[in-house]
Amino acid sequence: MGKVPRSFVREILKVTEDPEIISFAGGLPNPESFPYHDIKEVAVQVLEESGAQALQYSTTEGYYPLREWVSNRYQSKGVKVDPEEVLVTNGSQQGLDLVGKIFLNQKDPVLVERPTYLAALQSFGLYEPVFHSVPLEEDGVDVNRLEEALHEFDPQLFYAVPNFQNPTGISYSLNRRKEVARVLTGSNTVFVEDNPYGEIRFMGEDHPPVKAFLDESVLLGSFSKIVSPGIRLGWITAPAEVMDKLVTAKQASDLHSSLLSQMIVHRYLSLYDVEAHLRKIRRMYKSQRDLMVSLIQEEFPEDVQYTAPEGGMFLWVTLPEAMSSLELFEMALKEKVAFVPGQAFYAEDPQYNTLRMNFSNSSAEKIETGIKRLARSIRELEK
Amino acid sequence: MGKVPRSFVREILKVTEDPEIISFAGGLPNPESFPYHDIKEVAVQVLEESGAQALQYSTTEGYYPLREWVSNRYQSKGVKVDPEEVLVTNGSQQGLDLVGKIFLNQKDPVLVERPTYLAALQSFGLYEPVFHSVPLEEDGVDVNRLEEALHEFDPQLFYAVPNFQNPTGISYSLNRRKEVARVLTGSNTVFVEDNPYGEIRFMGEDHPPVKAFLDESVLLGSFSKIVSPGIRLGWITAPAEVMDKLVTAKQASDLHSSLLSQMIVHRYLSLYDVEAHLRKIRRMYKSQRDLMVSLIQEEFPEDVQYTAPEGGMFLWVTLPEAMSSLELFEMALKEKVAFVPGQAFYAEDPQYNTLRMNFSNSSAEKIETGIKRLARSIRELEK
Repeated sequence: MGKVPRSFVREILKVTEDPEIISFAGGLPNPESFPYHDIKEVAVQVLEESGAQALQYSTTEGYYPLREWVSNRYQSKGVKVDPEEVLVTNGSQQGLDLVGKIFLNQKDPVLVERPTYLAALQSFGLYEPVFHSVPLEEDGVDVNRLEEALHEFDPQLFYAVPNFQNPTGISYSLNRRKEVARVLTGSNTVFVEDNPYGEIRFMGEDHPPVKAFLDESVLLGSFSKIVSPGIRLGWITAPAEVMDKLVTAKQASDLHSSLLSQMIVHRYLSLYDVEAHLRKIRRMYKSQRDLMVSLIQEEFPEDVQYTAPEGGMFLWVTLPEAMSSLELFEMALKEKVAFVPGQAFYAEDPQYNTLRMNFSNSSAEKIETGIKRLARSIRELEK
Repeated sequence: MGKVPRSFVREILKVTEDPEIISFAGGLPNPESFPYHDIKEVAVQVLEESGAQALQYSTTEGYYPLREWVSNRYQSKGVKVDPEEVLVTNGSQQGLDLVGKIFLNQKDPVLVERPTYLAALQSFGLYEPVFHSVPLEEDGVDVNRLEEALHEFDPQLFYAVPNFQNPTGISYSLNRRKEVARVLTGSNTVFVEDNPYGEIRFMGEDHPPVKAFLDESVLLGSFSKIVSPGIRLGWITAPAEVMDKLVTAKQASDLHSSLLSQMIVHRYLSLYDVEAHLRKIRRMYKSQRDLMVSLIQEEFPEDVQYTAPEGGMFLWVTLPEAMSSLELFEMALKEKVAFVPGQAFYAEDPQYNTLRMNFSNSSAEKIETGIKRLARSIRELEK
């Protein structure tokens, strides 16, 4: 299971490496948002003041001041998470792997959104569970279907990305969050809430994570979109008894995350104006998203549907039912424009007329040219 | 399986956190050897010259110039490993986890040395194999017993640390390496050769890894003892078909290792005199080891046996058969000196009269005082 989507997307991304291709296929943050000058300053400070400590082995749980920062950040959003309930990981991807490690055995049922985050299918897939999926609606997962699936499959986990989901860009409304918490309360299913994009809401009203209404859930976060993805730092929060197992699994996985990186990120977050930095990223992504959405609206045929996300880095396009996004991919490639065909994002029964578009890593010029070319390819395919 | 030794050693290490205690229990490199000034210089260069690249997502396999460095280093030791056969990991610990992930299913037989590296038991233990062990002799694993065990159990893996093993400090002779390769050739068993200490040979003749005689084996390496453990970088090398699975598993685990850290370590290794740095570490550890060995010889009762390693960070003490190192631990703690009771390092049938001593992280003064106190405790326990 885990291997199929990897090789598929790998092939896709390999094709799009050609610099002449305008690629909406990747999932990269805009590197113009990276604070590398500030990171350099704090790296110097950390190594001058605490060099021997920063380069030595450290605790599995993570650098305590960084865990406190995460705790305070949640508190400012009305969610109570103690620093002791935070484990620092190598990006939230490692959090997914640790969750798979401690919760999943072969053939365990796992519930995911439809469509869902590809790398979660890969992480969990290594433990060979059986995936079931619940459809996403405009404002979140279909709660009736979720309730049915909980009864039918009694899944070990329900995995969801309630903020600006990858791949669809869909966000759960406040009401939907409360409903999800309600139907999960008292079930045997652990809710795994992945929130890498939560800080990049550029329009609409902010909502607390589902964990605010479901204390015993597992919540993943990431510094990838706040500071830098290449530095590979994120975190996972869970109640004490789950945390203990996560720490054991993390210790066996790689002992701990780089202390130097943790100290650098913590000092950056403490010394610099994170809010101003986030405002800059949000402004940047909003203008890229606005441009892509308005061009899609103008240029794409009317029977093409698309999401208009309030945050994050992706939007989701649904072609007329009979069209295949894989065929479109091959036509678009001749026009030197690329995206990810949607089939990779389904745990079961892929919907072949869907595709994912990334807007965070393309200039206005590329978005304009790329969408126009893509519109031509769609019209060509419709003939 | 994985949980028992963790909590045991955790309790041990917790007790030894008291700064008044002279601890030979940990496994830390000497922080005086950390090149944090040089690391600071290269971090500034990397962030100034390639900041946006260093902070962006990168390839799962690792930073190519760093993989080339590893390849060249092997070549200088007569071992042919292409850069493409090198996957960068978060310390060699992650290499062990990836090996467990791709090779082990529940109840698979796994062969280890007796005693063996605790964290390997933890990493592999998560996949619930059945461990069997082969005794270590003065110059390496007992090859006859290894051959018997290969026939009897047909193990999935044989895991060994042929250079200055943790916990015993034992190294395989050249002949033993060739013999191990000979009996493994043509078997179904994958040889997993862990070599975190290979560069810290401070006396005796250097030998190539077993992989030099057994091309299809998996070989793990680490920057922890060459540059810094806290930065969490190592590597794993394997033949192409195994490498492909390792890359899939690494991608699902955490996408890739920190590119910033990889670029920093690569630049450090390229710009600075690594040989001079290694000579400094070896000199430091040799004088610590020499002092500890000579004090043990002078102070411990004659019926206590010990290894006198030619490299690495640990030596291994065997008390008279009737003595328990756990009892000794409790007595020694009253004298404010600590070590790790040996029972944690056995996959089966622990030998309770053994203990591990770390010499790399204690000053001469502490070694002198600590060994004298420990000798008193042993004599006390002998009464």
